[in-house]
Amino acid sequence: MTDNKIIYLDNNATTKVDELVVEAMLPYFSQYYGNPSSMYELGGRNSKVVKEAREQIKEFFGAKSSKEIFFTASGSESANMAIRGVLSGDKSKNHIITTKVEHPCVLNVYKQLEKEGYSVTYAGVNASGEVNTDEIYNAVNEKTALVSCMYANNETGAIFPVKEIAEKVKEINPKTKVFVDAVQAAGKIELNVKDTMIDMMGISGHKFHAPKGIGALYVNSSTLITPLIIGGHQESGKRAGTENVPSIVGMAKAAQLSQEALLYESTEVKRLRDKLEKGLLSKIYNARLNSSAQKRVPNTTNIGFEYIEGELILLNMNDYGICASSGSACTSGSLDPSHVLKAMGVPFTALHGSIRFSLSRYTTEDEINYTLEKMPNIIEKLAKISPYQKELKELKERKGM
Amino acid sequence: MTDNKIIYLDNNATTKVDELVVEAMLPYFSQYYGNPSSMYELGGRNSKVVKEAREQIKEFFGAKSSKEIFFTASGSESANMAIRGVLSGDKSKNHIITTKVEHPCVLNVYKQLEKEGYSVTYAGVNASGEVNTDEIYNAVNEKTALVSCMYANNETGAIFPVKEIAEKVKEINPKTKVFVDAVQAAGKIELNVKDTMIDMMGISGHKFHAPKGIGALYVNSSTLITPLIIGGHQESGKRAGTENVPSIVGMAKAAQLSQEALLYESTEVKRLRDKLEKGLLSKIYNARLNSSAQKRVPNTTNIGFEYIEGELILLNMNDYGICASSGSACTSGSLDPSHVLKAMGVPFTALHGSIRFSLSRYTTEDEINYTLEKMPNIIEKLAKISPYQKELKELKERKGM
Repeated sequence: MTDNKIIYLDNNATTKVDELVVEAMLPYFSQYYGNPSSMYELGGRNSKVVKEAREQIKEFFGAKSSKEIFFTASGSESANMAIRGVLSGDKSKNHIITTKVEHPCVLNVYKQLEKEGYSVTYAGVNASGEVNTDEIYNAVNEKTALVSCMYANNETGAIFPVKEIAEKVKEINPKTKVFVDAVQAAGKIELNVKDTMIDMMGISGHKFHAPKGIGALYVNSSTLITPLIIGGHQESGKRAGTENVPSIVGMAKAAQLSQEALLYESTEVKRLRDKLEKGLLSKIYNARLNSSAQKRVPNTTNIGFEYIEGELILLNMNDYGICASSGSACTSGSLDPSHVLKAMGVPFTALHGSIRFSLSRYTTEDEINYTLEKMPNIIEKLAKISPYQKELKELKERKGM
Repeated sequence: MTDNKIIYLDNNATTKVDELVVEAMLPYFSQYYGNPSSMYELGGRNSKVVKEAREQIKEFFGAKSSKEIFFTASGSESANMAIRGVLSGDKSKNHIITTKVEHPCVLNVYKQLEKEGYSVTYAGVNASGEVNTDEIYNAVNEKTALVSCMYANNETGAIFPVKEIAEKVKEINPKTKVFVDAVQAAGKIELNVKDTMIDMMGISGHKFHAPKGIGALYVNSSTLITPLIIGGHQESGKRAGTENVPSIVGMAKAAQLSQEALLYESTEVKRLRDKLEKGLLSKIYNARLNSSAQKRVPNTTNIGFEYIEGELILLNMNDYGICASSGSACTSGSLDPSHVLKAMGVPFTALHGSIRFSLSRYTTEDEINYTLEKMPNIIEKLAKISPYQKELKELKERKGM
């Protein structure tokens, strides 16, 4: 693999920083480096710059006021800050509802909260990866402090009806707070939080062509949270630490560019994703579409290659410079199959050989053609060394390929 | 003020990012942007890069093993993670000892912990800004979970004997943990943590010419902390969130450059600081050295201009492009006088007119000369409009100036 020949189809793991974003950030390292809290112009200028960026991120969330936007250092921090922050405000309620397919960074917070005495209901998903909303609604009671549902799943791309969930939950218990992890939705679909009953929403810059190490949390004006990082007055006292000016500027620029590219995402990126998906399914007899959710973000597809080991597929793809993933990056290294695909009931035969392809606005037709050219060879080669020769043969015959 | 004419003497608030640091970071935005957790080369390469950076930061701390180094997003996060992390591991002890002059980000954590039931002893300082270590030792008891003392004070530059404090505290109660906020020491003096009994030490990149939004926490191998940000496996499970590769690389480069410049700091930066300090004290009759601590970081001086309002001094300095501060940036905007100078017993007459000048390796002789030329005019102009004409006249006569 040479650096020039990387086919990057793992944009749900992280993205290339847009070069316009880097350009926007650069002056804030060595030229306009003042602390926004400082009295002099070099500082005051940056205070203004942070304010403008907050306005831009407000637009990105589709929020009412920039006072509802808090900068963080990651999607994980946004989630921890929202969940811990809203729960510690009211210790009288000890029930939480979430889904089985949340990102590990969110699930692990709930696992920890269970140890601390909270009772957590995990709603399931159907075979397409769509959340069973009734399981959420049926679980809401007067003790339910929080309902937490992701906007789009990182592995399947399935979009969850978070607007409807927030409305129904509040019909049942108006005091229940709703947190939405929108890390995989931001930059792919409109967030439009102001038209919803959602109380809190978290995003991560590096999933939409901003740098790593910057995120944001939306908290609506009627929701009170305690800070996770205590100290200085920054972020209205909700998150201490000198503002990360270059990255804040970068994320604002990335948000603007992503906003402008939403139509392109939903047409051209989707077209390429569909081409890749249909191509793989038609060319490879043991390929299986893991998520046929009706609503899906336009860049993601998750394909199971039955009877083949996912890690081996990825290693072979790497030899051709094609980057994709099995599961989320945050769980890689572990040999457990994806908790998302398990929750969907993906059969054992495909569970270990499932690959997520996630495109971006940088993905080209050539790259998709190249991937469609190489993948059948890779799978064919690996099928030959699979211990499941009998099953593969039967499958091939059944598919008539 | 034009951008070309900034005299930046506020390096304890934040620093210019070294251009070599920016250069080191640049490839990791749009070229090597892989998630370090990913299976393919674009990711694995960054995993290696983060490992190398951790090794460099280990050297910077003077730690034994890079396993003791955790990347964070700020000095505030490092402090919150250390304090919360070590306390939640052992809830049986409810006593903490710290100093009255800690950075607000640390003090506010303890104020919050008091609300949560902890008892906190705040050790005082003498008129030079040196901590009364006996107040610490006398307070240690079997319930003392944590002693928390900064390495160098951000406002006065006074260096506290943290190595000695850690040793004596552990003599009295070997189970008491010791956290050192080294944010203002890092890059100015050797940290050498491995030769101490200190358990945890926090630093912030943007105080030593790395970018904002990156910090680190040293936790020795015998100290167990629970994570502040729960989720993914990153940082050995102690801090979730995709690694901020460019900033981690940048901080490692900044650490290396600062390490190489330590001799320059202790000779040339100190010479310029001393020149500025002596010059201001000899040229301006109402100037008063607020900290004459025997041990001080080489870049900092804090001068009180009696009977003059600090904010007015700063505004006038800004007209000449000279950047400095009163108090810490994190408390600016508040009209309360510095809690550090108050704890030192700085008289009321100087408390409101105290200015911290903090140099860096970029500070030039010309800049110091320019500052020494302008400051007397500024103070003279403001003295004329001070409501304390009688007192100023008496002071002038007493000083024979």
